[in-house]
Amino acid sequence: MYPKQFIRFFTGQGTLLASTLRRVDHVGFSAPIIICNNDHRFLVRDEAASAAVEPETVILEPVARNTAAATAVAALVAMRKSADAVIAVMPSDHLVSNADAFVDSLLRASEIAATGKLVLFGIVPTRPHTGYGYIRRGGELDGACGVYAVDAFCEKPDRARAETYVASGNHYWNSGIFVLHAATFIAELERLAPEVIDAARDALAAANHDLGFLRLDAAAFARSPNISIDYAVMEKTSNAVMLPIDVGWSDVGSWSALWENAPAFDEQKNAVEGDAILIDTRNCLVHSDRSLVAAIGVDGLVIVDTPDALLIADQKRAEDVSGVVARLRELNRTEHAQHIRSQRPWGYFETLSTGSRFQVKLLHVKPGGHLSMQMHHHRSEHWVVVRGTAKVTIGDTERLVQENESVYITATHWHRLENPGKVPLEMIEVQIGGYLGEDDIIRSDDVYCRAPDETR
Amino acid sequence: MYPKQFIRFFTGQGTLLASTLRRVDHVGFSAPIIICNNDHRFLVRDEAASAAVEPETVILEPVARNTAAATAVAALVAMRKSADAVIAVMPSDHLVSNADAFVDSLLRASEIAATGKLVLFGIVPTRPHTGYGYIRRGGELDGACGVYAVDAFCEKPDRARAETYVASGNHYWNSGIFVLHAATFIAELERLAPEVIDAARDALAAANHDLGFLRLDAAAFARSPNISIDYAVMEKTSNAVMLPIDVGWSDVGSWSALWENAPAFDEQKNAVEGDAILIDTRNCLVHSDRSLVAAIGVDGLVIVDTPDALLIADQKRAEDVSGVVARLRELNRTEHAQHIRSQRPWGYFETLSTGSRFQVKLLHVKPGGHLSMQMHHHRSEHWVVVRGTAKVTIGDTERLVQENESVYITATHWHRLENPGKVPLEMIEVQIGGYLGEDDIIRSDDVYCRAPDETR
Repeated sequence: MYPKQFIRFFTGQGTLLASTLRRVDHVGFSAPIIICNNDHRFLVRDEAASAAVEPETVILEPVARNTAAATAVAALVAMRKSADAVIAVMPSDHLVSNADAFVDSLLRASEIAATGKLVLFGIVPTRPHTGYGYIRRGGELDGACGVYAVDAFCEKPDRARAETYVASGNHYWNSGIFVLHAATFIAELERLAPEVIDAARDALAAANHDLGFLRLDAAAFARSPNISIDYAVMEKTSNAVMLPIDVGWSDVGSWSALWENAPAFDEQKNAVEGDAILIDTRNCLVHSDRSLVAAIGVDGLVIVDTPDALLIADQKRAEDVSGVVARLRELNRTEHAQHIRSQRPWGYFETLSTGSRFQVKLLHVKPGGHLSMQMHHHRSEHWVVVRGTAKVTIGDTERLVQENESVYITATHWHRLENPGKVPLEMIEVQIGGYLGEDDIIRSDDVYCRAPDETR
Repeated sequence: MYPKQFIRFFTGQGTLLASTLRRVDHVGFSAPIIICNNDHRFLVRDEAASAAVEPETVILEPVARNTAAATAVAALVAMRKSADAVIAVMPSDHLVSNADAFVDSLLRASEIAATGKLVLFGIVPTRPHTGYGYIRRGGELDGACGVYAVDAFCEKPDRARAETYVASGNHYWNSGIFVLHAATFIAELERLAPEVIDAARDALAAANHDLGFLRLDAAAFARSPNISIDYAVMEKTSNAVMLPIDVGWSDVGSWSALWENAPAFDEQKNAVEGDAILIDTRNCLVHSDRSLVAAIGVDGLVIVDTPDALLIADQKRAEDVSGVVARLRELNRTEHAQHIRSQRPWGYFETLSTGSRFQVKLLHVKPGGHLSMQMHHHRSEHWVVVRGTAKVTIGDTERLVQENESVYITATHWHRLENPGKVPLEMIEVQIGGYLGEDDIIRSDDVYCRAPDETR
């Protein structure tokens, strides 16, 4: 529910999404087109605001259809402004430590793309990584120094093969970053993956504007095959070229990658975020979101402590988190998907305590935030304002509730909460009833125009 | 604030205190005399009840004065009933896996003690432990097969010396368990440590009975030297003898000792308590008190996750927890002493959330539990009953508050909470104010007769 582009891993660093947006907030680039899942639209808007970037548009995918369809939509949108549009396609969860060199590469790639090419970025490999696909370069292009034909796409290799690739000097990590001549990309889709471009066109034609978001038509978009740009176009087209880059890139695909890219280390090469006491401890990533972490005599561990769960893993095994996720799925658990702190367009809430017939939550409502008018069949709620001022509507009556005041909402009564003030509103909510699921909610009159089945 | 004899380490196992009490709830033993710190008196009473053991008396130490003074008091109390009393002196935080053999040894030792001896138990060592003192045995006693004179007390050794001791076959771990002829012990104290026995006699003479507890006189007891039985008597007397025992004993002095003594292991020799998913993980103790613990590819760790703090330690370094405690003391922190869940004679409370001007607590009041009549200068309180029924007194008015009802207590107003019902009362308390320390409390009329400076 909260992918890594939205997480602040280290104090003083923004999110990966904000970094990605700022990276192209630069002369030579138009305002970005953002494509995201419907569930993340408010997070995206908040991050764009925190990066002080005004997107051209935020396009909402009703279902995930991989990168080909999303990029097709972006290319179509870009071509509305210019038939010669060149687009840079960037996942929003990558780290680039040398942003200046990266922007230079983007500008260089756009010159090449403008000639009708589809440029993909190959990363100069620093080690035999088995988690990435590789690209084998072909000959250098005439008149384009340092730009290569693509000889082959290589699937994620085993360790031995990865070592061969790195030793060869002509294999690069497939970054998933592209600079595309939009018209050429669309033409190649028409030729190589017509179902993708048809679905993208139809979904865009039937899209509707919704509070500043552009929501693609669900039925039309769902008709696209679930396929990546590589499979749909790049592996088949003769227009693909590769530009190798060496810009301190990482897709932060594992906790050990986060450790490698930490902004600071202590003398024992530990990267620590949060409250920790380390004794004879080396080469560890320690991320503590709740109480004190004490480590004694350990080496090369990833220790991630959050209100949701605790992870302790050997750095060399940090990619096996997928095994934990698989186990959680088997057990029908929710830790791999949901968080204790749930983000909402009006702010967030956290579950503080859960009993058999009660739950205690902390609600944090941004200045100006409005919860929808809502009603619960099975739970009553006690609200105690602990910071700021709330505007509370119950039935037809409206009142202001100050710090240290409380209100009670009987089950089945319509109610609404707003923060009319200038500082955040914090409230303790004690829910009591026989059923306390988030789906016991009937909603009307939502300023964020959320669907009836979106909770809160 | 909550020593290890009160902790339930594994589901289905009682506390070490309850196990200790049950061990001697046996033909041949009188009701036990318990000596404990004043702070732990309600915990002791609850554990005795859970073990279904009715103590002869529970004696409260106003200050800690080590084992000589406490044992002197116990010996004096035992002699009130019989001039020939024999007492078994047992720390309440030891594990004995073979309880039957242990009781046999106690009964055998009491026969020897009845002849005027001071018997101490030597543990047949299973490895060169550096955390214990050792006893070197002398000759076997005439007519007492398997009972030995004490040749020497050896301080905690280094590793090499410990190996020599174990190889010698005539060194034993000093268990701290004794079986004493009370009159002989007192006579030896009079001769060897007269200040100890004088202080014990005076403290007992001036003791007062308090709600079923016997509270020693603080000034008198404080005059005793802070000294162990070993130093005060056993190392000097000619009446000491040693009975070696091999009964699966451990003082559970470290987390790795707890792992060694775990009641069950999985196939990879992990001992797991609580919610955990382990992948390629071996020889670990995992104790999870809050959310999911996931471990990947780790070996030989102690992982202890509680609401207070998280500990991750190499099993071989588990005794270095003292280093963490020292660091916490240096930093004036409280994690080494205090817990999120605070035990009180009426039940317990847990801190759910802490803000700059508010705190949220869950209060759990046992049936029949009474909080004192109290008043706070700096905080108002909102109480929401989430389970059971509360009797709430505010000023002169008294009312019953049911589940799903709330009350508000203005700062400076006298108030009291009771559970008049048959099931536990659970309440969410939202405190709001400029100062939220537990010491902002004025108390009167406490049914547990706590001192004014004891919180709540």
